[in-house]
Amino acid sequence: MGRWEPGARERLVVAAVDLFTEQGYDATTVAQIAERAGLTRSTFFRHFSDKRELLVAGQETLSRLLADGVAEAPASATPLEAVAVGLERASAAMGPANRELGPRIKAAVAASTELQERDALKSVGMAAAMTAALVARGVPDPTAHLASELGVLAFKRGYARWSETDGDTGGLAACSLAALEDLRAATATLG
Amino acid sequence: MGRWEPGARERLVVAAVDLFTEQGYDATTVAQIAERAGLTRSTFFRHFSDKRELLVAGQETLSRLLADGVAEAPASATPLEAVAVGLERASAAMGPANRELGPRIKAAVAASTELQERDALKSVGMAAAMTAALVARGVPDPTAHLASELGVLAFKRGYARWSETDGDTGGLAACSLAALEDLRAATATLG
Repeated sequence: MGRWEPGARERLVVAAVDLFTEQGYDATTVAQIAERAGLTRSTFFRHFSDKRELLVAGQETLSRLLADGVAEAPASATPLEAVAVGLERASAAMGPANRELGPRIKAAVAASTELQERDALKSVGMAAAMTAALVARGVPDPTAHLASELGVLAFKRGYARWSETDGDTGGLAACSLAALEDLRAATATLG
Repeated sequence: MGRWEPGARERLVVAAVDLFTEQGYDATTVAQIAERAGLTRSTFFRHFSDKRELLVAGQETLSRLLADGVAEAPASATPLEAVAVGLERASAAMGPANRELGPRIKAAVAASTELQERDALKSVGMAAAMTAALVARGVPDPTAHLASELGVLAFKRGYARWSETDGDTGGLAACSLAALEDLRAATATLG
């Protein structure tokens, strides 16, 4: 396999994130995003309905994958074991484009209150999706909430380690599961 | 003591939250908020710099109170005991205006993506403030993150119980501390 070559969708996301960082989310137009990506506006609209959707699309996919993994974990799985299956499922869908985007998204979010709000809502959506899937497994409410919060924290910490570390990290799944284990161990030290 | 009478600031917040619910955040103007509250635009601007600040002001105060409580807990306090002091500190600052606002804010947030994003960022800000205060106490990183997430969940659950339940709930502090204890107990059932 040769060097990874991004497709149109990935090029649009990279261009958008870079423009959001340079000039802000509000000031960035669809025309500018398409131009930076070397594509036409009509290509943009084949992939996304608008600028906002470009940010939301990935989030909805991620929440669905996390919830699917939780739902399909063996019946004998503990709440955190079910969350771990969700993390593995979501991690498997993340490729080199996502790894490369990590630090860029971080810079864009740091530069924009609007993107901080989007990013915060993304975390809430991921937690809500896993909580609903855990409750459907019969996990009682406070445990389901807590397990899904640990899952979101683990995914974010794992993603940061994976995308900000050069060289072999063992992949996103390994990073997320290691972070989940760290958090599980930390529950014993809360007092 | 007679019936609680809201001041200008509280009337502006109630009017704004109701208008956001009825017609959306974007469509609501400062002039409309002032009119609904029976006040002038210049009174609005004595309390808030703009419509957005009306939402942010409470959040910053809350984060500061939570962090102050964590910082001032006894040196012997465990991470969750320090978080509990933060919850008590923040709860003490919440009066009848906050209790009455609870269900109204919930309705406004349910009706607006923009307010959902604001609300999500509020939770992130509260967690970040407590995490920083715990790290400053020498609590190691994953434990500090986890304890502050439990604190935010407990405050939200306690606030919901307090503001949505008629009659004597024992106050917001009691509701929040009970929710924190439920979450602490749930850590033993994560698997």
